[in-house]
Amino acid sequence: MGRPDGRTRESDVVNLDPAIAERLRRDGAGLVPAIVQEHGTGEVLMLAWMDDEALHRTLTTGRATYWSRSRKEYWVKGATSGHYQHVRAVALDCDGDTLLVTVEQVGAACHTGAHNCFFDSLEVRLQ
Amino acid sequence: MGRPDGRTRESDVVNLDPAIAERLRRDGAGLVPAIVQEHGTGEVLMLAWMDDEALHRTLTTGRATYWSRSRKEYWVKGATSGHYQHVRAVALDCDGDTLLVTVEQVGAACHTGAHNCFFDSLEVRLQ
Repeated sequence: MGRPDGRTRESDVVNLDPAIAERLRRDGAGLVPAIVQEHGTGEVLMLAWMDDEALHRTLTTGRATYWSRSRKEYWVKGATSGHYQHVRAVALDCDGDTLLVTVEQVGAACHTGAHNCFFDSLEVRLQ
Repeated sequence: MGRPDGRTRESDVVNLDPAIAERLRRDGAGLVPAIVQEHGTGEVLMLAWMDDEALHRTLTTGRATYWSRSRKEYWVKGATSGHYQHVRAVALDCDGDTLLVTVEQVGAACHTGAHNCFFDSLEVRLQ
């Protein structure tokens, strides 16, 4: 896999365990969505994106690391805010195209300061 | 918005409430990921995809309805399996590009028969 968005690779070494890499089904940009859930509360905090290297770093550092599609760079969650996500578990779904990352969240997960990103409720109104 | 994947629209009527539609940030195929969480248990069941019409149908029928990227058609979860998802709540995230759908799940959410799709655990091994 090349880097998402055609960015030049920092290295040609593919670090992710090949046994995991072969089960991943990536989108056209080489990414899979990662659902982030809080350990203990079960709260769904946010959704972010990983490529192979972000997943490798997440699994081997224990700090949730994503690919920022807007900044086009790796992003250790909390590196600037201090709001780290300490990884408790990572699971791949049945068809290999989505990750579920269970974390201990330091502070707020959302850049707005909210604990999670899903505070905009839409009304379910049966017709 | 046209239909995802360039499919011919069934109708030119856009049904989704414009106040919601203007807050959605869709991907290149006109879709947003929908995280599906079980009411009560907090279990993350699956991830699926919605376009504007799928979201409209979900909000107005109370049955979770997705866009199937493989079959290129609307998909009322449970229509063939009986494993319906009765919608309790829908929320949009802070930047409008992800949905969180809270459901009462009838039977198994996963096509494998598992209750949720995330049964393939990846080992977190700090280096």
